[in-house]
Amino acid sequence: MRNIKLTISYHGKYFSGWQTQNSGVITIQEEIEKALSKLLNENIKIIGSGRTDAGVHAIAQIANFKTNNKQIPLTAFTCGLNKLLIKGIAVLKAEDIDIDFNSRKSAKKKTYIYQIYNDRIISPLDEDFYYLFKYNLDIKKMKDASKYFLGEHDFASFAAAKNSTNTTIRTIYDIKWKTENKKIFFEITGSGFLMKMVRNIIGTLIEIGNNKKNVDSIISILKSKNRNFAGATAPAKGLYLKEVFYA
Amino acid sequence: MRNIKLTISYHGKYFSGWQTQNSGVITIQEEIEKALSKLLNENIKIIGSGRTDAGVHAIAQIANFKTNNKQIPLTAFTCGLNKLLIKGIAVLKAEDIDIDFNSRKSAKKKTYIYQIYNDRIISPLDEDFYYLFKYNLDIKKMKDASKYFLGEHDFASFAAAKNSTNTTIRTIYDIKWKTENKKIFFEITGSGFLMKMVRNIIGTLIEIGNNKKNVDSIISILKSKNRNFAGATAPAKGLYLKEVFYA
Repeated sequence: MRNIKLTISYHGKYFSGWQTQNSGVITIQEEIEKALSKLLNENIKIIGSGRTDAGVHAIAQIANFKTNNKQIPLTAFTCGLNKLLIKGIAVLKAEDIDIDFNSRKSAKKKTYIYQIYNDRIISPLDEDFYYLFKYNLDIKKMKDASKYFLGEHDFASFAAAKNSTNTTIRTIYDIKWKTENKKIFFEITGSGFLMKMVRNIIGTLIEIGNNKKNVDSIISILKSKNRNFAGATAPAKGLYLKEVFYA
Repeated sequence: MRNIKLTISYHGKYFSGWQTQNSGVITIQEEIEKALSKLLNENIKIIGSGRTDAGVHAIAQIANFKTNNKQIPLTAFTCGLNKLLIKGIAVLKAEDIDIDFNSRKSAKKKTYIYQIYNDRIISPLDEDFYYLFKYNLDIKKMKDASKYFLGEHDFASFAAAKNSTNTTIRTIYDIKWKTENKKIFFEITGSGFLMKMVRNIIGTLIEIGNNKKNVDSIISILKSKNRNFAGATAPAKGLYLKEVFYA
């Protein structure tokens, strides 16, 4: 038995998210499983590092699967598999890995990027990749407010209403900001992220940047453990799963 | 009578090029003319700084048109017009300009960018925007060879076979290269460009980078004034009209 680790990139626009839904919609997991099952002539199930929602992009999502096929070379899972996959998904890398490796359970940290375009008009070249926010943003306030997320917190206020995980406690290790003209890049690294957590954090930071909330409101929002206190969910198309760390 | 200058961005994938073709295909010029004619309730014709081929992107194409409408505010030609335009085109800026201004005839210089991705596999997030070249490229050789294009030359060897301009002499003012991991960015500024000239230059430079041609072969290719001596035409999707200069 081999355990294969895949590094996968996808364009969120083409999919109803990562997870197989058995409801006629196109999901990344299902498309990869179909292609792998065809390639290996075996019924393959993959384990992703976590789900991404409809419209969310991945620079490097990680998944693994087990196969009885001992002969097939790793390039079959990159160049070969990519020929069987539909537009919008590509396997960038394939590696043989310890039989115990589990993309989800072995994950130690994840990094997401969120991209905002702060102007009245966006180029069609950029529109699939940024949240176009047309009103004034005070980036300094957003940066200051984001510092309150660092460290271990209960993120219940930033989880999707239908979140069903055991615990809503997560640790944020690092937050980086970069601006280039009208483009704002937010990068966050944490132990893990609840459903829609990054998009709810961004929605809240945007309300702070737009002077709808105070910089220190993050403190009380975290304390409330109530989704209603945080800001609106920012659009999926600005969000990228950048990296999953296993050490 | 007003003369309005528009700065326009478009995603080449959605169009059969700039120029109206009256053959059932979707062109940028025709889409903008339709939207403007509707907005102004006048039959509007626009003059572009030049044609771009099917699949070529524009960061900032320039066009102008004349209208009898004295009242309509300039925002009608940006935010207002963008609501009438189909996906893939956006007017970024609208200005009143001298009645003599002609987007094509007044143009002094243009800058194009060409983007290459030099790897075996490209992310779906990048694939609309790069020419994926899977084989080895010696960037140093490409840079050295590109210097031969600087200055005034007869570019007949680099013009599309069906080129029909009076003269094939053009001046190249500047060439810049930038690399970021597997991404190669080529930027070229010239007095003007013949049909497919940038894509033929890139096709030739890629053959030099891939050791199919010598660095100094550019000298003899230019001298030959024969399209057959230059390399293949590189794909449209890597090409961007970046800027048109009027001074």
